[in-house]
Amino acid sequence: MVKGVQFSAAASGIKAGAGELDLGLVFFSEPAPVAALYTRNSVKAAHILYNTQRAQGRVRALLVNSGCANACTGRVGVEDLAFIAGRLAGLLAIRQEEILFASTGVIGKRLPVETMTAALPGLVAKLGEKNLDVFAHAIMTTDTYPKIVEEALPGGTHRVAGAAKGAGMMNPLFATMLAFVFTDYPLDAMRLKRMLPALGRQSFERISVDGDTSTNDTVLLFSTGSGTAAGGSGGAGTGYHTAAVKAAIGRVMKALALLVVKDGEGASKVIHLTVKGAASTHAAERIARRIAASPLVKTAFFGCDPNWGRIIAAAGDAGVPIRPRQVEIAIQGERLARHGVEVPFIEEEMKKLMDSREIELVVNLHDGRAAYDMYTCDLTYDYVRINASYRT
Amino acid sequence: MVKGVQFSAAASGIKAGAGELDLGLVFFSEPAPVAALYTRNSVKAAHILYNTQRAQGRVRALLVNSGCANACTGRVGVEDLAFIAGRLAGLLAIRQEEILFASTGVIGKRLPVETMTAALPGLVAKLGEKNLDVFAHAIMTTDTYPKIVEEALPGGTHRVAGAAKGAGMMNPLFATMLAFVFTDYPLDAMRLKRMLPALGRQSFERISVDGDTSTNDTVLLFSTGSGTAAGGSGGAGTGYHTAAVKAAIGRVMKALALLVVKDGEGASKVIHLTVKGAASTHAAERIARRIAASPLVKTAFFGCDPNWGRIIAAAGDAGVPIRPRQVEIAIQGERLARHGVEVPFIEEEMKKLMDSREIELVVNLHDGRAAYDMYTCDLTYDYVRINASYRT
Repeated sequence: MVKGVQFSAAASGIKAGAGELDLGLVFFSEPAPVAALYTRNSVKAAHILYNTQRAQGRVRALLVNSGCANACTGRVGVEDLAFIAGRLAGLLAIRQEEILFASTGVIGKRLPVETMTAALPGLVAKLGEKNLDVFAHAIMTTDTYPKIVEEALPGGTHRVAGAAKGAGMMNPLFATMLAFVFTDYPLDAMRLKRMLPALGRQSFERISVDGDTSTNDTVLLFSTGSGTAAGGSGGAGTGYHTAAVKAAIGRVMKALALLVVKDGEGASKVIHLTVKGAASTHAAERIARRIAASPLVKTAFFGCDPNWGRIIAAAGDAGVPIRPRQVEIAIQGERLARHGVEVPFIEEEMKKLMDSREIELVVNLHDGRAAYDMYTCDLTYDYVRINASYRT
Repeated sequence: MVKGVQFSAAASGIKAGAGELDLGLVFFSEPAPVAALYTRNSVKAAHILYNTQRAQGRVRALLVNSGCANACTGRVGVEDLAFIAGRLAGLLAIRQEEILFASTGVIGKRLPVETMTAALPGLVAKLGEKNLDVFAHAIMTTDTYPKIVEEALPGGTHRVAGAAKGAGMMNPLFATMLAFVFTDYPLDAMRLKRMLPALGRQSFERISVDGDTSTNDTVLLFSTGSGTAAGGSGGAGTGYHTAAVKAAIGRVMKALALLVVKDGEGASKVIHLTVKGAASTHAAERIARRIAASPLVKTAFFGCDPNWGRIIAAAGDAGVPIRPRQVEIAIQGERLARHGVEVPFIEEEMKKLMDSREIELVVNLHDGRAAYDMYTCDLTYDYVRINASYRT
């Protein structure tokens, strides 16, 4: 439990299903500094336009809805948020500028403003420090489980906790749709903003479900401890350093990212892909992303098919030069190819090794010392089922 | 029927199924000039290494096999082809340097050289001018029908005919795995090589099935008329011009490309996508390719879902700037979005319009005058089924 932050959730009626949670509220007892990462898609959801237009001051509340992305809704999409902010500010006795938003769901539809504002008093009444779980439920779309990670910092005084939602329209640049991370360790906005991009590159930017970058991708990192005496000092009085806090925040973000890819739409397994022996990190990353996005590679993993030819073909198609005759490929520690040609293996034994929820795939280019690793999932019938019928 | 070229096919045993055609032979009565396009993948199949190592002289024979890509087979993969060429040259009484190869199938496995050479005498014995259909059968892998297009040139003296195979691992740069086009109109190698790249950009480079570029992609264009009196002259004596021949070859290639995308692995419909109003052709092409490769867009088309939000999200993720608030999107002539926001439409009527084998999708960026169009297919359960079990 992170001190200084409360959560609640409601079934406001945005989603068609009766009683389905679709609105989550976060309330900070004291104004909290925040750092944000938003989608790199040129098409940005209304909440991103709204949040980034505001002064980068401290935040008192965050309202998140699922069931409607409020993207491609034009100026009225942003005005809808301003209207809701007006109501929420009144109920919480805070200023409108202290409210942030995040949305996820179908693109192109406006928020049902009346339904949502009607649910606000109930949301405010139910706020509680122990409600992170219902909040994490409320932000789900095609997710099959809520994603929460919590960690105590050394000494036990402070904690880091986060909630995320994922499932589809996920591409590593950048990956998850929504993630919110909180710590009661005192960190000022500058520190938060300085650490977040690197932590994002190590976590949410290293997962891929379908290679489609969302219009709504948002990661917000809050510190609730900055209102205390140690505020912004780096927590010298607590006996440990910002570096340790940063590491803990990084672990929470990485764990959330893993939960997201494990619950990728229709996914039956997670593939941990490492490209090493590359001439540069850039090359390793390009090749890893290309392999992770290949539908042929992903369907092969679904079918427990040790089809290393598809992996090397994807590697060769990444837009960076490789030396095919030096490539080595191993799945679950078993080498399938060396010097770019097949190493004899027993098909049935490989199939058994691949019949696992978690797969290790290593591609060694033998062309240098750089490496990059990331996570992806398989492509299954359920991915098609979910996405051929998402709106209906 | 193109004069001067004969075809045959055999079930040599490369494919597991008894009696399945897997080997096709093309024989030219006179040495034929040829132009080639090969994959841009860094990992190139043995037949591409073999063909490109040879002098760019005239060709007497082309041997094509399905069931084994002979890719990632190292030096022995190329040596296997040289060995087969030795046998075939003897049987046809031609020089080894006059033989080209093409392969398609599983990557990483060597050709069964003994089985294949044993089938060569039968192949040679069965050569005939009317056998393009069995040849087109022999080069199929997951294709569900053979792909042949033929056209008479004005005047009726000369013809253009082609055969292709496609189905999977297809990405527009470059797209089909194998296509062979023949004309008995006299064109020399220089003319063939000059016209082929542009014709490729207008046909095979404008289709996409799954965004995975093959290691084996090959297009070969042959003229069998160059051995005649008019050889290489541009056919001045025949009453029409090279431009008309080029146009006819282009139509045959485009028709073959369309057959390939219609028969994309698991495809239930073809989407003709036009991006227009772009600031540059480069931008239009980037955006078109990004939309065509989006699994979310492709599953939505499978589900007859007018989910224009996924289309604009993909457009915004193409790595070129767009102005979201100017974008207009129409499916089957019905406008779904304008100025980047939804135009009211009746969901059920759109679903009916989209329940078609062929879909027109137009994305107007209202940002310039450039345009690019291409063809893709939907992403279905069958794509997953085919590719989760391709090797077994």
